[in-house]
Amino acid sequence: MTDKAGGRTGTVMAAIRQKLAARVLTPGEKLPSIRRFAATMGVSPSTVVEAYDRLAAEGLIQARPGSGFTVSGAVSPLALTEAEPRRDRAIDPLWVSRQSLDSGPDMFKLGCGWLPAEWMPNGAIRRAVRGLGRAGDAVLTEYGAARGAPALRRHLVRRMAGEGIELSADQVLLAASGTQAIDLIGRFLLRPGDTVLVDDPCYFNFQALLRVHAVRIVGVPYTPTGPDLAAFAAALAEHRPRLYVTNSALHNPTGATLSPQTAHRLLTLAAAHDLTIVEDDIFADLEPEPSTRLAALDGLTRVIRIGSFSKTLSASIRCGFIAARADWIEALVDLQVATSFGGPSPIAAELIAGTLADGSYRKHLDALRRRLSRARREAAARLGSLGVVPWIVPRGGFTLWCRLPDGHDAASLARAGLAEGLVLAPGNVFSVAQTAGGFMRFNVAQMTDPRVYEALARAMAGARDGADLPTAASP
Amino acid sequence: MTDKAGGRTGTVMAAIRQKLAARVLTPGEKLPSIRRFAATMGVSPSTVVEAYDRLAAEGLIQARPGSGFTVSGAVSPLALTEAEPRRDRAIDPLWVSRQSLDSGPDMFKLGCGWLPAEWMPNGAIRRAVRGLGRAGDAVLTEYGAARGAPALRRHLVRRMAGEGIELSADQVLLAASGTQAIDLIGRFLLRPGDTVLVDDPCYFNFQALLRVHAVRIVGVPYTPTGPDLAAFAAALAEHRPRLYVTNSALHNPTGATLSPQTAHRLLTLAAAHDLTIVEDDIFADLEPEPSTRLAALDGLTRVIRIGSFSKTLSASIRCGFIAARADWIEALVDLQVATSFGGPSPIAAELIAGTLADGSYRKHLDALRRRLSRARREAAARLGSLGVVPWIVPRGGFTLWCRLPDGHDAASLARAGLAEGLVLAPGNVFSVAQTAGGFMRFNVAQMTDPRVYEALARAMAGARDGADLPTAASP
Repeated sequence: MTDKAGGRTGTVMAAIRQKLAARVLTPGEKLPSIRRFAATMGVSPSTVVEAYDRLAAEGLIQARPGSGFTVSGAVSPLALTEAEPRRDRAIDPLWVSRQSLDSGPDMFKLGCGWLPAEWMPNGAIRRAVRGLGRAGDAVLTEYGAARGAPALRRHLVRRMAGEGIELSADQVLLAASGTQAIDLIGRFLLRPGDTVLVDDPCYFNFQALLRVHAVRIVGVPYTPTGPDLAAFAAALAEHRPRLYVTNSALHNPTGATLSPQTAHRLLTLAAAHDLTIVEDDIFADLEPEPSTRLAALDGLTRVIRIGSFSKTLSASIRCGFIAARADWIEALVDLQVATSFGGPSPIAAELIAGTLADGSYRKHLDALRRRLSRARREAAARLGSLGVVPWIVPRGGFTLWCRLPDGHDAASLARAGLAEGLVLAPGNVFSVAQTAGGFMRFNVAQMTDPRVYEALARAMAGARDGADLPTAASP
Repeated sequence: MTDKAGGRTGTVMAAIRQKLAARVLTPGEKLPSIRRFAATMGVSPSTVVEAYDRLAAEGLIQARPGSGFTVSGAVSPLALTEAEPRRDRAIDPLWVSRQSLDSGPDMFKLGCGWLPAEWMPNGAIRRAVRGLGRAGDAVLTEYGAARGAPALRRHLVRRMAGEGIELSADQVLLAASGTQAIDLIGRFLLRPGDTVLVDDPCYFNFQALLRVHAVRIVGVPYTPTGPDLAAFAAALAEHRPRLYVTNSALHNPTGATLSPQTAHRLLTLAAAHDLTIVEDDIFADLEPEPSTRLAALDGLTRVIRIGSFSKTLSASIRCGFIAARADWIEALVDLQVATSFGGPSPIAAELIAGTLADGSYRKHLDALRRRLSRARREAAARLGSLGVVPWIVPRGGFTLWCRLPDGHDAASLARAGLAEGLVLAPGNVFSVAQTAGGFMRFNVAQMTDPRVYEALARAMAGARDGADLPTAASP
């Protein structure tokens, strides 16, 4: 690496580089203060400021507000978007999340991870809201129980019993969301520097979340029947990971389903290496018929089950849950009290329980699955006419993980898409190894308007003509 | 320390003690695996298991689920209640929180930090719930904006402008609760091993929260006009803290109010030492008339404002907020997306905004303050007849920080209280230095039933007669 900066600034930069190379300064460590290093080097403070700023721009060091500069390398939760400065903003997980959350109704959110409002059980929810208006004062105004509303926890126990998971209500903890549930588990089980396995590709926010925990993220290639077992075994042996985070059914982003054989072998490997598994099952209700779950095979010994209601009931009524060993739940309750003074809003739990109990909810799910099946077929056909081909045809859900035509780069297309009113989720957002540059995740429920495909065709043409077109990598 | 265990178990324990003393094993480090250490020592694995279990019971090492044992010392978020094993459970902050959250309606919660349901604006909330039933589908089912509902954020901007804090809506982030807001700030600004100043006494959950962040907690004695400035200055010089977390008005637990002079000097000291301050202002609406706020003097340069609606509107509709520098908010948004995929439920923000906009809310606050003023006077008189005397008479709020009669220990009284149907908050739960063993925090709003005082008198008599009565320390 050459310094564009010459003279004194270059000299200061070279001195810091030497300290980094010699590990005199290690990741996370504070750099000398500007004043002190200026004195040491016999230069002006402004020269050191410039040198530090340039090294920060290169990503070697990081500015920490009000506290000078620290050496990069250890992942810093301080400014997540700056933790990997060379990563294109268009393939930054947080960028895709925030585009999806914050873009206006004029944008087509093909890259978002949820259903449009009109696909949700609005009638049942409105009835639950009316029921809430008749609830006691305590429900409306008081903190809830530390583990969350007992009625909803009992519902979850019955539901998991139906899957073959025997557990008590003490093994269920309500959390403010599925994401926050995983975050709590991270705080419970992970320490900075631990290694965590994820699928490659995987849900992009897993990466953002794990970066906050300052752990090393190792990706295992995902196949249509689950993780590649040879690669999984090799990763266990090489990295001794503490945790594996995955979706078993309707895997995000691929829509693939874990096969029984892969599930069994995976658990055998996990037992041999004392690996804990987080099974994030938030898409469960979108499955046409139940498939193999790690938690059901394992019985919550080393598998922790996560769920939420965001995908089939409401993402606004925020509520997730954790099912795990009773002693782990006990420790997680303390962590949730310390960091959030409790779990989800008791009102949220009341609305969820009310909607689930509404006679129409099961019918809503049946209708939703049929509607998604049609939308999936239609989107696959229309995308196909643009040369965009699904990797597999999922059994359910709303995602299609698609290969772009040769020569197309998903990040370039995502940038071009923005100008055409499309929020897209380019493949490398999901890929730890950054090997999915030729892939894109589409949400078929957000693609029922034919203008989507016209805009996509224009964006594809624009991206191809763009000067910055790299070769598409394939996983 | 002597080993009660003799023979081989004692030999193994002694070997580990030696390694700890010689720093061969350092805090946070893993102990040798049971199998390996059994081989090394020439004993059976069950002997090592027993030795490790005994060392864990002493607090020297900690069991880490599925991952063997690690050396204690570095604060471990894994099992917060085990981080300080010698601390009495009755003066453990998490124990008091969980007792308050989980005890049934048959208990008098004199130690809890909130108002009874019937003191809250139930009429206005029910009208807001009815309004929610008429909201659009998107409000009921979709994720909200990454910073939270714009209408509520604009309300907060106007309200803070009324305090003299000029800020834009981009400087406000909604969070799932006031506690979660502080947690996010901790993740943003703190690193393990940093030092954080708190008041002594301070809100007990600050300690539990900061233990999760693995920081060093230093207490500064609190006076009736704010922190003791000489001690504050000394702590800044000695510990170089990164953060100071406090309540300015209606300080928890004392009910004291920061004076203008103390506020000004505090900010001058903070500037000289580049200290960031979190001003947790959740009791703001309980103040009879506004007093000095650090955020107002500072203008959100080095002060971060936290608020919530749990104390005067509803603790069930969970919603907090952060007001801070725009660049800090930008980084906090990313952190909140990564760890919770957004802030509070959009439904919660809608209900809060609806209740605040209800014409009756301002009248509710006026009536609430008058009612609290009466309750405070009555509780102080009745406690006085038991020899329990308020440290100061607060200007507002619901807490009375009281000195117990000589010879009474608050922890013993809290234990005796449980048997009498009282959940109490003993002084040392709030004290970093554990110098408040002779104090108790009472919630006057939970003490309107005369049976409370009969039960308290019985508990005081019981605790005095108890065998385990230590001498009460005074701060």
